[in-house]
Amino acid sequence: MTSQPREPAGHFEALPTVRCKELLGRHTAGRVAWTAPDGPHILPVTYAYHNTQIVFRTSAHGVLAALERRTPVAFEIDEIDEDTTSGWNVVVRGSAQAVTRSYELASLWREGPVPWAQGVRTLFIAITPRTITGRAVRGPFVD
Amino acid sequence: MTSQPREPAGHFEALPTVRCKELLGRHTAGRVAWTAPDGPHILPVTYAYHNTQIVFRTSAHGVLAALERRTPVAFEIDEIDEDTTSGWNVVVRGSAQAVTRSYELASLWREGPVPWAQGVRTLFIAITPRTITGRAVRGPFVD
Repeated sequence: MTSQPREPAGHFEALPTVRCKELLGRHTAGRVAWTAPDGPHILPVTYAYHNTQIVFRTSAHGVLAALERRTPVAFEIDEIDEDTTSGWNVVVRGSAQAVTRSYELASLWREGPVPWAQGVRTLFIAITPRTITGRAVRGPFVD
Repeated sequence: MTSQPREPAGHFEALPTVRCKELLGRHTAGRVAWTAPDGPHILPVTYAYHNTQIVFRTSAHGVLAALERRTPVAFEIDEIDEDTTSGWNVVVRGSAQAVTRSYELASLWREGPVPWAQGVRTLFIAITPRTITGRAVRGPFVD
């Protein structure tokens, strides 16, 4: 009779786009998903939100180099608290492509994202959003 | 002369599979990525690591219902500290499919994952891993 109820009690709430962009600008770590030749893949990246694009730096020889040529991707950031079962997430869908313009590269080398680990990462990949959506879950509030 | 160095100083370290499975078993929130008709998609889910599968509950009418029929997916969990630029992640690649066997459903309704938000979520999706990889990044340690 006192067992934990096994039904959820939280609520989803859509986040306005302006709030999603604010969260993108405030954070520096997210996850990029794309369709690799052997199926969907997902990897965390350190990014910067730079001129409405999500930009990250990678190795020309790593798996993320597959995104050098224009590739459809999804990108996600979130903050999730497993203890309170609450949090938010922002999902960007769009296309990724290597940055090749010299003035953009100059600016990115000066102000752009810095990866966390050592290694030669000279390739900047920029994601141009097609859609940006987000939602928060607040819970559990039992009605 | 005193400006912050803009090169990363951390180190990546591969996590053994047994450690990845331990982390999967210890956490309850992750992100699933798949190739939707309009491109790659990624969404957070509440999961349970149940008999070597990642199981989550969703609505038969939501976007994740696309995974009801056998679909290649990637799944990721992580803990990332943007302040110390350190953390770990585990990436599972495999295929998702709805759970349909009655004895499995009985067990999942009793012990399986509970979504955080209200709503009719009667579809259990199970991801069978093909590969499980993980890595930690510890940084920055300047050599």
